[in-house]
Amino acid sequence: MKEKTICILGGMGPEATVDCYARIIQNTPAKTDQQHLRVIIDSNPKVPDRTAAITGKGPSPVPTLVSGCCALQAAGADFIIMPCVSAHFYLTEIRRQITLPILSIYDAVADSISVNYPDINTVGLMGTSGTISGGLFQKRLTAANCKTIVPDDTRQAKVMAAIYDIKNSASPRSRKQITSDLVAVALSLVSDGAQGIIAGCTEIPLALNQQHLSVPYFDALTILARAAIIEAGRTPVP
Amino acid sequence: MKEKTICILGGMGPEATVDCYARIIQNTPAKTDQQHLRVIIDSNPKVPDRTAAITGKGPSPVPTLVSGCCALQAAGADFIIMPCVSAHFYLTEIRRQITLPILSIYDAVADSISVNYPDINTVGLMGTSGTISGGLFQKRLTAANCKTIVPDDTRQAKVMAAIYDIKNSASPRSRKQITSDLVAVALSLVSDGAQGIIAGCTEIPLALNQQHLSVPYFDALTILARAAIIEAGRTPVP
Repeated sequence: MKEKTICILGGMGPEATVDCYARIIQNTPAKTDQQHLRVIIDSNPKVPDRTAAITGKGPSPVPTLVSGCCALQAAGADFIIMPCVSAHFYLTEIRRQITLPILSIYDAVADSISVNYPDINTVGLMGTSGTISGGLFQKRLTAANCKTIVPDDTRQAKVMAAIYDIKNSASPRSRKQITSDLVAVALSLVSDGAQGIIAGCTEIPLALNQQHLSVPYFDALTILARAAIIEAGRTPVP
Repeated sequence: MKEKTICILGGMGPEATVDCYARIIQNTPAKTDQQHLRVIIDSNPKVPDRTAAITGKGPSPVPTLVSGCCALQAAGADFIIMPCVSAHFYLTEIRRQITLPILSIYDAVADSISVNYPDINTVGLMGTSGTISGGLFQKRLTAANCKTIVPDDTRQAKVMAAIYDIKNSASPRSRKQITSDLVAVALSLVSDGAQGIIAGCTEIPLALNQQHLSVPYFDALTILARAAIIEAGRTPVP
């Protein structure tokens, strides 16, 4: 089978885009450059803030995202992934305006939990306030028979502040301080009954990893990267 | 001034491409996603091996590189950088076949040494055997009044083995062992009279950094990333 070209519609944020591509590389079995997959990336950080748009406080990111999809198609894309969970709120609207397929990070995560952890029926979801209030990720998990617990308003504000601080290279808070806040929120979700935690924003794995938690950690970005490798026609490393 | 879109013609190797984009992000002053630059990347690891081509043992990478430039132009590129020093052997040939400007990593490094280290007149160059035998990087440094010292054949074989091992995720050698070999070669160049060391292959900074050396270390990839930020219309972080 001919390998497909993976296209990353990124820039939301730029560091998560780098991280996404790094995970594709790390999860592709290859001994030489030539054994790796071709990946085309449009990292456009000018896309309007997704949480602001979802909560009615800013312009829609859809026109910029659709224009990015067209740029990727012109460059030779076979299919697209978006390493930004919040942007998936607009997935249906984007899909209506383009012809290239886009993998859904909601589908990738829900399928991964169903297949690998069939006994888990309640997960804690950590994401932007846009993702949490948008509710589509929770809806997709419910369809996979997985109940979702989300942080209360005070804790959600801490998650959102952590995400913006990760994006801000001039943030006065260290990564360690940010990690500490995210761990506290994750633990509160576990004590509320979550059997696993979803890093439902692509910035979160930049500060929180499995070693911080005693329950399974579903890193949406890695799950999406591995789904992309499969869609491109390869088998990810175990 | 309107910011320009940086395009990375990459994949040579994929990890160096990730590293190049990470350095653009790290060197761009930005507190939010939207303050970052737009970057389009064609990471095509299928480009034939550059050293094999330069030494007459493999096909030319030029057709694939030119086709990548055209893909990037279609996607909206303003100018191109190639995070692969060896591929610069073909820069003149590529420039003849495309209309978009390509920044030269040779120019960026030579200018950076002239401006920042005017007292340095002899540098050690570490790169692929293609770059070393091609001789164009040395020629450009000579034009900037900088003499070049390169490893002898035995040491050059060690550098080349280190570079291929960095590209090979299944390499039996640890990064530490690879670093140790690269440090030994760098020290031999210093003892031969080099006042500074150029990491003249984009894989080398993945295993060798300034902390390993007592003389100035010119990381061609970071220098190129900073030159790209300036070309895009921004001032890099100090």
